[in-house]
Amino acid sequence: MKHFRIPLVSVIGGATCSPEEAALAERVGQLLAQHGYGVVCGGRGGVMAAVCKGTNQMGGVTVGILPGEDDREANPWVQIALPTGLGEARNALVARAGVGVIAIGGGYGTLSEIALALKWQRRVAGLVTWDIPGVYRASSPEDAVAYILST
Amino acid sequence: MKHFRIPLVSVIGGATCSPEEAALAERVGQLLAQHGYGVVCGGRGGVMAAVCKGTNQMGGVTVGILPGEDDREANPWVQIALPTGLGEARNALVARAGVGVIAIGGGYGTLSEIALALKWQRRVAGLVTWDIPGVYRASSPEDAVAYILST
Amino acid sequence: MKHFRIPLVSVIGGATCSPEEAALAERVGQLLAQHGYGVVCGGRGGVMAAVCKGTNQMGGVTVGILPGEDDREANPWVQIALPTGLGEARNALVARAGVGVIAIGGGYGTLSEIALALKWQRRVAGLVTWDIPGVYRASSPEDAVAYILST
Amino acid sequence: MKHFRIPLVSVIGGATCSPEEAALAERVGQLLAQHGYGVVCGGRGGVMAAVCKGTNQMGGVTVGILPGEDDREANPWVQIALPTGLGEARNALVARAGVGVIAIGGGYGTLSEIALALKWQRRVAGLVTWDIPGVYRASSPEDAVAYILST
Repeated sequence: MKHFRIPLVSVIGGATCSPEEAALAERVGQLLAQHGYGVVCGGRGGVMAAVCKGTNQMGGVTVGILPGEDDREANPWVQIALPTGLGEARNALVARAGVGVIAIGGGYGTLSEIALALKWQRRVAGLVTWDIPGVYRASSPEDAVAYILST
Repeated sequence: MKHFRIPLVSVIGGATCSPEEAALAERVGQLLAQHGYGVVCGGRGGVMAAVCKGTNQMGGVTVGILPGEDDREANPWVQIALPTGLGEARNALVARAGVGVIAIGGGYGTLSEIALALKWQRRVAGLVTWDIPGVYRASSPEDAVAYILST
Repeated sequence: MKHFRIPLVSVIGGATCSPEEAALAERVGQLLAQHGYGVVCGGRGGVMAAVCKGTNQMGGVTVGILPGEDDREANPWVQIALPTGLGEARNALVARAGVGVIAIGGGYGTLSEIALALKWQRRVAGLVTWDIPGVYRASSPEDAVAYILST
Repeated sequence: MKHFRIPLVSVIGGATCSPEEAALAERVGQLLAQHGYGVVCGGRGGVMAAVCKGTNQMGGVTVGILPGEDDREANPWVQIALPTGLGEARNALVARAGVGVIAIGGGYGTLSEIALALKWQRRVAGLVTWDIPGVYRASSPEDAVAYILST
């Protein structure tokens, strides 16, 4: 039987970010799409917008799990927008949805997602983000993607 | 700018269903895909599997918002599987994710989704399902889809 | 060992209600407290405020599971206020928290809670509310409370 | 008008813990109750059981927001047991329910709660726990409680 499932990687980071973080996120999105993976994220701006932009450039699927009740809060590169109305409790869904997690920059919200992903024994690769035991400190987008996909 | 968003319709119903309900669901999936809409559902069997099967037949996108923590509980026609770990509280997410809701058969779980969708002023079309004020009693899959997409 | 647990009954209904519904809710709260039960509800106004008022009059415990992020949205008779930030998805928590559910009046939100409670095989007693198979149509607050506590 | 609200402090930590952590948690519970505060926690064992035990010793209120669907998973010192069925997503509710958070030991689940509490600008005091910027490193249960209640 034909297999329809699209494997996803969670990409997390701040709703605002530096140009350097945005460039890393866009490259991560491109690489994941080239490897046949979709991206699931929080659907907002900053790192989330950049990774969705990169994923779309290479024809990949983008899913945004939004905190609010209105799908218009999604960034324009989100293909599948899911307005949960759960607020920050939706972070748990983002952390769980991917086969692994790539964290880029980010604040306390990102830290909560890293923590839950590690609790659920997901692989977590970090680029200029929180230095938590269990997070693989990746040297580049290529390194981060290779670490996640080597599971 | 290019528009990437894929509009979704929520399709709800029992995890087990009659052959007649499955046929209705499969047809609803085909019609939604033909109109350029993806399907979001609870990701399990019965009506959920049938609608995903029909959507895939016409090249549409299928999203399954799962109650459990493991994406292997998704039916094989789900493309985007989101294991929420929220149990039945995930019903709220299914009801909210679509521009409207089509209900086919179903028990108390389906009733909870109909109620939330009506609370949020979504259009709800019903095929052999709960007779609740506010639900449009559709005569066929074509009628149900036309009602939802006429918003 | 001393037993600390306080048994709870879920009481659900509209955030606005008629004087008759408020009187029924207040009486339900009084009766539950007299039987040693606390009340768990959505924490807002209308039926929720009236049942908390009655419960407090007889020295019972009141728990409000709020949709928003701020406990100041609780009615003044809520003792334990839990601001969930989950929106209407918090209805699932209200329906699950009691040993049974008493529904008084109410709209679509109340219907969603009735449906989930029945799905979880909780007893549900109704006073001038939705006529759904499985809901016991109680003739009075006394009758509703007796039905729930006879489990 | 009489004021019924019981102020709560969130106490978080591992479901298993060392005897030293249990002693700290029990003392925190005693102190909070003496100051007129109730405790809200995840309702399970370890730090959660110890803090509920201490709170009960001084006549305080204990609330357990449980991950599963069955209130029998609560520790015996929980007075108000709320089985959410949300899994680890319930951590967000624990972090939000108190006026502040006291963390004792703990693993990744505790880290996720610390992160969310800081995101929501709650005061967080830590006793032998994660060293995250924004967490007050308390020297004793007395110091931790004083820090939280000085808001």
